Amino acid sequence: MRVLVLGADGYLGWPTALHLSHRGHDVGVLDNFVRRQYDYELGTSSLVPVTHLQHRIRAWEEISGHVLDPFIGDLNDHSFIYETLRAFRPDAVVHFAEQRSAPYSMIDRSHAVYTQVNNVAGNLNLLFAIAEIDPTIHLVKLGTMGEYGTPNIDIEEGFIEITHRGRTDTLPFPKQPGSFYHLSKVHDSHNIMFACRIWGLRSTDLNQGVVYGQETDETLLHPDLATRFDYDGVFGTVLNRFCVQAVAGHPLTVYGAGGQTRGMLNIRDTLACVELAVNNPAGEGEYRVFNQFTESFSVRELAEKVADAFAGTVEIENIPNPRVEKEEHYYRAAHTKLLDLGLVPHLLDGSTIASILAVAERHRDRIDPAAIAPTANWRRAGAEEPVRAGQRAVSARS
Amino acid sequence: MRVLVLGADGYLGWPTALHLSHRGHDVGVLDNFVRRQYDYELGTSSLVPVTHLQHRIRAWEEISGHVLDPFIGDLNDHSFIYETLRAFRPDAVVHFAEQRSAPYSMIDRSHAVYTQVNNVAGNLNLLFAIAEIDPTIHLVKLGTMGEYGTPNIDIEEGFIEITHRGRTDTLPFPKQPGSFYHLSKVHDSHNIMFACRIWGLRSTDLNQGVVYGQETDETLLHPDLATRFDYDGVFGTVLNRFCVQAVAGHPLTVYGAGGQTRGMLNIRDTLACVELAVNNPAGEGEYRVFNQFTESFSVRELAEKVADAFAGTVEIENIPNPRVEKEEHYYRAAHTKLLDLGLVPHLLDGSTIASILAVAERHRDRIDPAAIAPTANWRRAGAEEPVRAGQRAVSARS
Repeated sequence: MRVLVLGADGYLGWPTALHLSHRGHDVGVLDNFVRRQYDYELGTSSLVPVTHLQHRIRAWEEISGHVLDPFIGDLNDHSFIYETLRAFRPDAVVHFAEQRSAPYSMIDRSHAVYTQVNNVAGNLNLLFAIAEIDPTIHLVKLGTMGEYGTPNIDIEEGFIEITHRGRTDTLPFPKQPGSFYHLSKVHDSHNIMFACRIWGLRSTDLNQGVVYGQETDETLLHPDLATRFDYDGVFGTVLNRFCVQAVAGHPLTVYGAGGQTRGMLNIRDTLACVELAVNNPAGEGEYRVFNQFTESFSVRELAEKVADAFAGTVEIENIPNPRVEKEEHYYRAAHTKLLDLGLVPHLLDGSTIASILAVAERHRDRIDPAAIAPTANWRRAGAEEPVRAGQRAVSARS
Repeated sequence: MRVLVLGADGYLGWPTALHLSHRGHDVGVLDNFVRRQYDYELGTSSLVPVTHLQHRIRAWEEISGHVLDPFIGDLNDHSFIYETLRAFRPDAVVHFAEQRSAPYSMIDRSHAVYTQVNNVAGNLNLLFAIAEIDPTIHLVKLGTMGEYGTPNIDIEEGFIEITHRGRTDTLPFPKQPGSFYHLSKVHDSHNIMFACRIWGLRSTDLNQGVVYGQETDETLLHPDLATRFDYDGVFGTVLNRFCVQAVAGHPLTVYGAGGQTRGMLNIRDTLACVELAVNNPAGEGEYRVFNQFTESFSVRELAEKVADAFAGTVEIENIPNPRVEKEEHYYRAAHTKLLDLGLVPHLLDGSTIASILAVAERHRDRIDPAAIAPTANWRRAGAEEPVRAGQRAVSARS
């Protein structure tokens, strides 16, 4: 199949492009490099060095013999995405090309507005381009498990059957997202569902859990094929960040009580899930949601797993939670649809953590301890005024 | 109370500002006049002539002795709304300042993106301004009953208690909006709910039905105080449009089978509901939803009511439905919260229809029959390419 990967220079986009290419698909790679721009803005860097996209593409061709077709531009430039679809003629588009950090979206007003406008308008441009150029294109869209929040009932995959006052309907699962970033994904999901309904588009919304790991079968073939490894307080995901803290001899910083439980998955499973979605497209007019994670852990459990690898020489420190979230809560979420399609999960065990620690160890001279602390505070709206809102008790309503 | 009305030059914003001023509130009026710009774009005009905002403000002061404080600018210019809140120091902000037409949002890609970016980013700027400048300000936000769509269960006011696999929680009511405009209001609702949760803001989301009528106690005091009356296929609401068609001797054009049922209310009740919300503010951190309508009617019933006023001399014509929507469906929606606060509805009777017909009759020389036909087609993504999506069968999934 012809697959266009949007955001193919990023943490997951790049190894997904390699994986699909390795598995025999004709792959186009699209990016605007704004993720690298965030690094300049924040003064952070990927722990693992990553070469320019053009270099990586050449390295992949030399090693695998497979060609990746590059498209450099921004989804918010609608003519660019229209031209790209006309030129590449994909069967499927895998859409990773959004601002993906919750803390980044919570820095202040301008980052919140940027995140929502960038993500929502870019995705709208893509939906219209597909509808106008070729409505048979299957849109595989990266959403997040964070769209659901932490309701006190079981989370289903996108839809829930509700019986109310004697009548029954299957409706979109209610959403309680926890940041302006997570909200942008909820907005996207509503827009995509509508586009499938009115134009007959086909879409799979992958509500992905928190990803850990950095190495994949393809990236291991050569150092020039490596993908990003973020450990900073803004873009680093929790397990990767704990591994870097441990290697740096820093306490593992757990936000609040640490009972926050989330669905998680290995980076290799992200690649497998995307390929399963691509190989088994949604039907005409179908909007389907897959919950893309393999296991649930609390933040505390993750910290303990990393500490265990150091036989007690690493400390766990509970720091004030910069986020507004429940720190002890019910959490049970369905995730059977991808298993039904054939996913064989890489579960989190000691060897997985050892391999992440080895990556951190190999690049320990590049660790910047100052980058790890959280910088965005959910309780503070921003810096334009002396903060009054941030000093208030947070409402108990969730 | 000090009340700032955003979008105060519009169909509902202007009479709301007059009503609040008449009832003793200190009222600020904010607008960027983009609604008048849409008229130039579409070649349409309000059936009832409306003078410049500055003239209307002077007329109101001469007639009532009350001053309206004008603020001219755009919510998407964040510094403008920050400066306005600092200058006016409102107790409540009533937010009508969004692109409010479903057909306008469905014209093409550019109108869809404009509608969502304008509405969502403008509302985000407002939320941040309130949080940073004075989080005690009560945000009274105009949403729409169209956020819910037409589920096969009873619609509740914003939240629904769900029991699922033996556990129970009260969650946001699932949303199935029917246009990019309605989607923008769903996005707003999620953003506001989150802002109340993390910053302790107070907000009332008025999920308003379809409004009919043009005259209010205050606008009747002088022709210079009149508000807009839109009857065109893009901005005209259904009952107002039928009344103009009848006066013009045109058949009443019902989209499809006409079983589409919606909550409706008299323009006078809009004003009363807003004042009830303002006078009874939400608590700290409270996000509450009021379903703001008084009666439900199908489009067919509305056409028959207007035809009845002409004793059978007016025809009803079922034209192809430009929208993608169920034409026969279950519809029952709760609307008790505003009644509990004291709303005394103006129900739809023959005299109401007669008064709308009288407005249309008075200005019949200004009726442009060419403006009435629908111009946006929900099935067509736009005009950038020969339309393939629009020629496809629409999915049955709703």
